Amino acid sequence: MNSLNVAQKLIQSHLITGTMDPGTEIGLKIDQALLQDATGTLVQLELEAMGLDRAKTEVAVQYVDHNLLQTDFKNADDHLFLYSAAQKFGLWYSKPGNGVSHPVHMERFGIPGKSLVGSDSHSCAAGSLGMLAIGTGGLDVAAAIAGQPYFVKMPKIMGVKLMGKLPDWVSAKDVILEMLRRFGVKGGVGSIIEYYGSGLKHLSAMDRHVIANMGAELGATTTVFPSDGETRRFLKSQGREDDWNEILADEGCSYDLEHEILLDELVPLIALPTSPGNVVPVRDVENRKISQVVIGSSANPGLRDFWMAGAIVKDRSVNQEVSFDINPTSRQIIQNMIGNGTFANLIKAGARYHQSGCMGCIGMGQAPASGTISLRTMPRNFPDRSGTKDDQVYLCSPETAAASALTGKITDPRDLEKLFGMKYPQYEFPDEVIINLDMLVPPTKDNLEIKLKKGPNIKSLPEMNALKSAYEVPVLLKMGDNVSTDEILKAGAEVLPFRSNIPEISKYSYSVIDEKFYDRAMLAKEKYGGHIVVAGENYAQGSSREHAAIAPKYLGQVAVIAKDYARIAWQNLINFGILPLEFDNPQNYDDIEQGALIEFKDLREDIINKGLIKVKVKNKNNTEEIFTKHSLSDRQIGLLLKGGVINDFKDKLSS
Amino acid sequence: MNSLNVAQKLIQSHLITGTMDPGTEIGLKIDQALLQDATGTLVQLELEAMGLDRAKTEVAVQYVDHNLLQTDFKNADDHLFLYSAAQKFGLWYSKPGNGVSHPVHMERFGIPGKSLVGSDSHSCAAGSLGMLAIGTGGLDVAAAIAGQPYFVKMPKIMGVKLMGKLPDWVSAKDVILEMLRRFGVKGGVGSIIEYYGSGLKHLSAMDRHVIANMGAELGATTTVFPSDGETRRFLKSQGREDDWNEILADEGCSYDLEHEILLDELVPLIALPTSPGNVVPVRDVENRKISQVVIGSSANPGLRDFWMAGAIVKDRSVNQEVSFDINPTSRQIIQNMIGNGTFANLIKAGARYHQSGCMGCIGMGQAPASGTISLRTMPRNFPDRSGTKDDQVYLCSPETAAASALTGKITDPRDLEKLFGMKYPQYEFPDEVIINLDMLVPPTKDNLEIKLKKGPNIKSLPEMNALKSAYEVPVLLKMGDNVSTDEILKAGAEVLPFRSNIPEISKYSYSVIDEKFYDRAMLAKEKYGGHIVVAGENYAQGSSREHAAIAPKYLGQVAVIAKDYARIAWQNLINFGILPLEFDNPQNYDDIEQGALIEFKDLREDIINKGLIKVKVKNKNNTEEIFTKHSLSDRQIGLLLKGGVINDFKDKLSS
Repeated sequence: MNSLNVAQKLIQSHLITGTMDPGTEIGLKIDQALLQDATGTLVQLELEAMGLDRAKTEVAVQYVDHNLLQTDFKNADDHLFLYSAAQKFGLWYSKPGNGVSHPVHMERFGIPGKSLVGSDSHSCAAGSLGMLAIGTGGLDVAAAIAGQPYFVKMPKIMGVKLMGKLPDWVSAKDVILEMLRRFGVKGGVGSIIEYYGSGLKHLSAMDRHVIANMGAELGATTTVFPSDGETRRFLKSQGREDDWNEILADEGCSYDLEHEILLDELVPLIALPTSPGNVVPVRDVENRKISQVVIGSSANPGLRDFWMAGAIVKDRSVNQEVSFDINPTSRQIIQNMIGNGTFANLIKAGARYHQSGCMGCIGMGQAPASGTISLRTMPRNFPDRSGTKDDQVYLCSPETAAASALTGKITDPRDLEKLFGMKYPQYEFPDEVIINLDMLVPPTKDNLEIKLKKGPNIKSLPEMNALKSAYEVPVLLKMGDNVSTDEILKAGAEVLPFRSNIPEISKYSYSVIDEKFYDRAMLAKEKYGGHIVVAGENYAQGSSREHAAIAPKYLGQVAVIAKDYARIAWQNLINFGILPLEFDNPQNYDDIEQGALIEFKDLREDIINKGLIKVKVKNKNNTEEIFTKHSLSDRQIGLLLKGGVINDFKDKLSS
Repeated sequence: MNSLNVAQKLIQSHLITGTMDPGTEIGLKIDQALLQDATGTLVQLELEAMGLDRAKTEVAVQYVDHNLLQTDFKNADDHLFLYSAAQKFGLWYSKPGNGVSHPVHMERFGIPGKSLVGSDSHSCAAGSLGMLAIGTGGLDVAAAIAGQPYFVKMPKIMGVKLMGKLPDWVSAKDVILEMLRRFGVKGGVGSIIEYYGSGLKHLSAMDRHVIANMGAELGATTTVFPSDGETRRFLKSQGREDDWNEILADEGCSYDLEHEILLDELVPLIALPTSPGNVVPVRDVENRKISQVVIGSSANPGLRDFWMAGAIVKDRSVNQEVSFDINPTSRQIIQNMIGNGTFANLIKAGARYHQSGCMGCIGMGQAPASGTISLRTMPRNFPDRSGTKDDQVYLCSPETAAASALTGKITDPRDLEKLFGMKYPQYEFPDEVIINLDMLVPPTKDNLEIKLKKGPNIKSLPEMNALKSAYEVPVLLKMGDNVSTDEILKAGAEVLPFRSNIPEISKYSYSVIDEKFYDRAMLAKEKYGGHIVVAGENYAQGSSREHAAIAPKYLGQVAVIAKDYARIAWQNLINFGILPLEFDNPQNYDDIEQGALIEFKDLREDIINKGLIKVKVKNKNNTEEIFTKHSLSDRQIGLLLKGGVINDFKDKLSS
């Protein structure tokens, strides 16, 4: 492998363990960490539980961009907690209102060639600068901040060659929508998507951000771009030319998968409800009446995108039946929007602007009216994500969004020429922009005396017990196939506010399946020292939420015995010290009754030996002996025996 | 009465019935109506129920400024409904994001000498322009829109003579805080407060808005200012000089009450938790650490107030532990803030700006962190109003707020000179401002075909039955003294979203007292055709909310028998056709059991006769005859017999 592509170069330069063979586990050195607030409170509690002194990454930033609607004390309390934690652990703190993590990070911290993990699925956006940036679970980010490698299966590299130049009225959003049109929402699973080719020279760094960001919607491990002259131009405009370095694919390099897009042939595209993969030409759905247009989010975050919307609506008024919502991505973007007239153009035309943050993109306000169409430049339109049941959210470019705001119906922006005699507004990338650092609080130099500020809803992580060798514990729940994390620990407005409070959120464990589970688990914890649950195939599919492991662990869950597991959930169980066992013979599923007592005798030894694990099952009327197994790596066995990653880290710290 | 003060002139020129003797009922012609969205949905449903064709007022405006956080479909649905209703009934519609009703109304619609009723308690703010502007219940506003007079007891006129000139760093907010310091939150009850004197020439029209707005906190019926050169200057700057006319008090006029404020002697003041009446000098509480500063709301809405905050923080950064929240009052204000550099100054210094609207002032977001101090330029700091339990909200001027944002603790703005070497920034009132009309949708010319757009949560008002002469109905509830509207129909996040849905909100009637009340009332409605309730003294004290009458009416409530009533609730019961009876002998309260059957025989005749009304009480083991009475005016008797104001209006329309 003499000639490397950009993805391989980035991996090679951070490879600590493993080899670059797709499918095998590799360990990567992590240079930067990105946290947002919705997942960050748990990460900070994990850092506290680990006993971390100070972040070991070169840069770690705690952003506050998700939970900005303070309808009661909880969100404001979380902000103060995150501030105190950032100060204590040596992180940057981006205050509420400073902006969306991904574009702010790109502007202020992104450096070509660096690696990053982020507790947000769109962290891959930093690939736009030639970084290796991966979105992952909070505990993986906490481990990285604590100086541990990040472990992931080596992905395949999918090369996408971009050629030609985008036509007028077609922009970067249409490129990623074309990818989604071709490959769908699972098209990138197990892959890094690497863009290359002559078409790149017409795509600015922020255009590339648009494309890299929504790589998450393709299911890709991440997206990478080379670091070239456009990257340099961007960093120079941000006053950071010194941070630039060139990273190009070697001549003669190859890709595991190869595709090609001719930019000249693209047309304005739009994703229909209720998946980013439902992509069709705007022309196919034009003239549908709309009630809302929202411009913003990490999927169209750049000054150009707002400028373009402003140029389209300039000296015009948006349709009087449309709510034209503008979410400027950051305070710095606002200052530049004021400077170049964009803000005034938008306000004048009837914009209803909002705080800098994710806002409606994560259902934090901006829910559309029932039975009406909302057009958004955002990355996702999963059902009800907007907050409105049976919502009709369409995803499109700023050009399509602004054109439609003027007409009140879905409009191909190319029609603006004949509708309004409008010429395509040509954006000129500014040589320099107004730079704003005021709301980025730097890490403290001396953090010894700083106490974490915990409001009444913020509780430290409970202790995680190490695994014992002998148990006699009841089967508290026997479940069928495809149980999802939403059933293990449901989402929604009732439960999510307790995300920083494990004892409280644990009360909702399995409550969708059995309302009495919590009470029964607490009794079992007292009487037997824990419990297990039994499940069929694909246990804990769905979201990556860590709470679906932490909460059962808190209630004393020792193990799960299932036919098989969803990938992320399996990792989360191990991370938090719950043993994920599989039936050696799946038919033994029928031999365990809910309420049976399960006896393990030499569990620790059995796990280390990697052989079959004998389990005595004391049912009501009979006793069975069945065999189970696990597929943990040695690294994972080590974690599990100690009770999970946090305990492992504490051990390393004290030794 | 040859020499009249301004208040008397305004009343005299609108007097339809009654005489200007304090305490007697007068009927006033209403020229303008102001609706906000939180109360407006019910007003529009009332207009629908009345069968209104088209608004009869000269100007009626439906603003949307309260429920701007769209966390589910309900608020967005309400916005669409209000838009369709404004179009149907011939109202202006101010789109969400256009701004707070009171300052927008002053800028675009306020005319000296006109009368206004508004379904918002701060509607009195329009008194700043020399209008007679009264905040009141929604049905009174609906009646005014339908061309009916507004009835109110003739208030006393309290004259407040302002002399001298405010010192540097002291502003209009400190004047109204001084009024609250002197007179407390009941100091204006039963009065119109009229400001006059040589000090007025230094107070701009928007300064007067600050003072008039918070007249509501004094409990005043309203506040008036003369219409003078400052009023003319303001209207001219808004491109409406033609709307100006002079209204001055006659020489030799007198006031029922007289007070005096020497402006030169005022110091920066602040209202402590948890009442706008807890006013002390800022100096007395300086150096207390704060976590939040909020600038905005109808209490400090003007360009000057934002400009002043911007001038104070210009080229500085706010304290890193403070959330510095800016709520620009309207889109027009934002455009002017962009134009004069204020917006950039604030953003640059670390402002977190929000939608144009009431926001945190009515607990719509911006809840502060637990146990921390929030400084606000808003009008109210009642307990928990911010959304945070046991909150600590302080009310102050923009000068005090901005100074404190810089230091992170409560700071007397006069100290800015020594702390930062800052000179007092002298605001220059602009000769003209940028004017923005884009989000004000004018009334339609032809509204015949317009259908009301009702989302799934918006239901038409139910029919209101006329009062019959004979009833035999059960006493469904017997209550004690001082039952509040919160117990009759509770507020809060669970119930308020149903404000446009009487059948649904009725399910919460009296639920605080008896969870089964709704079920029992529905049974009684079917079996007996209705019910009554019995109460002690001061029935239905507290909020003015109409739902505490409409919901029981919907459940079949015929009458209340109580020892006596809170004033507004008594009016609301009559408006919605529930008979408020009083015991002739309060000791008869003991003669009625919950569950008793009550027999009325000639009720309509008895009411018209204004004599004692005989009531047969069939208790479980005995039958009693007791006497009750009412104190309704002839006008009110007419309303009641028809089943309330809505039916009365329908009758007038069809005749």
